Amino acid sequence: MSCEFCNSPGGAVLWQNDLCRVVRVDEPDYPGFVRVILKRHAREMGDLAREEREALMAVVFAVEAAVRETMQPDKMNLASLGNMTPHVHWHVVPRFSDDRHFPNPIWAAPQRASGPSQGEREQRAAGLSAAIAARMK
Amino acid sequence: MSCEFCNSPGGAVLWQNDLCRVVRVDEPDYPGFVRVILKRHAREMGDLAREEREALMAVVFAVEAAVRETMQPDKMNLASLGNMTPHVHWHVVPRFSDDRHFPNPIWAAPQRASGPSQGEREQRAAGLSAAIAARMK
Repeated sequence: MSCEFCNSPGGAVLWQNDLCRVVRVDEPDYPGFVRVILKRHAREMGDLAREEREALMAVVFAVEAAVRETMQPDKMNLASLGNMTPHVHWHVVPRFSDDRHFPNPIWAAPQRASGPSQGEREQRAAGLSAAIAARMK
Repeated sequence: MSCEFCNSPGGAVLWQNDLCRVVRVDEPDYPGFVRVILKRHAREMGDLAREEREALMAVVFAVEAAVRETMQPDKMNLASLGNMTPHVHWHVVPRFSDDRHFPNPIWAAPQRASGPSQGEREQRAAGLSAAIAARMK
């Protein structure tokens, strides 16, 4: 069985502990988009024991807070889908009213080209690793 | 300020407590799709106090378990987006390999018409209310 998230980090690692890693998602339209990936292989959140599930969600919400603080988005989006890679992971996505798909989900048809603030957002995203580490102390 | 989830239940209510309600989503392609909607108005999960956030997620994961048990899907999807209705709510969606968008998110371009098992899935979804109530005891 080949699993992408068992076989590779899935992106540049911004932070990690024994339970999970936080990686930068390489999506030029979405600076600040990160994923929280469980280290061990499990298919569904419902397959996790309660303690493990709560520990993972504590990381997800700490990361959400760090992304929100760093990126100053109009809305935060959180999702655990895994239809293509059925290994527990969370998408944490800062959304802006002028981003490529707003107000639709990032997986929907694009509404427009990314706005002119993209460069400034990339600069902000450079601070994510430190902001996440600060939240994890 | 007009908020859809402050002004209406957002679907047929399957279960509720003081914190949130679970409603059936009226999406013919997705029998078993439910939403968990926070009763009070809050924009982001990050705006909730820790206790409230943990209580809401306990409901979300209990509902996920009830949907999984009832619908027997190939994958469960969870998402908190709220770009159009910025009032905290969770989409809990049972996914099947022959559903309209699989393996893409339900918000992406359709891949096909819904498969022939749709009727059987609607029958299973009729048991959701009881399955959720059983999990909440």
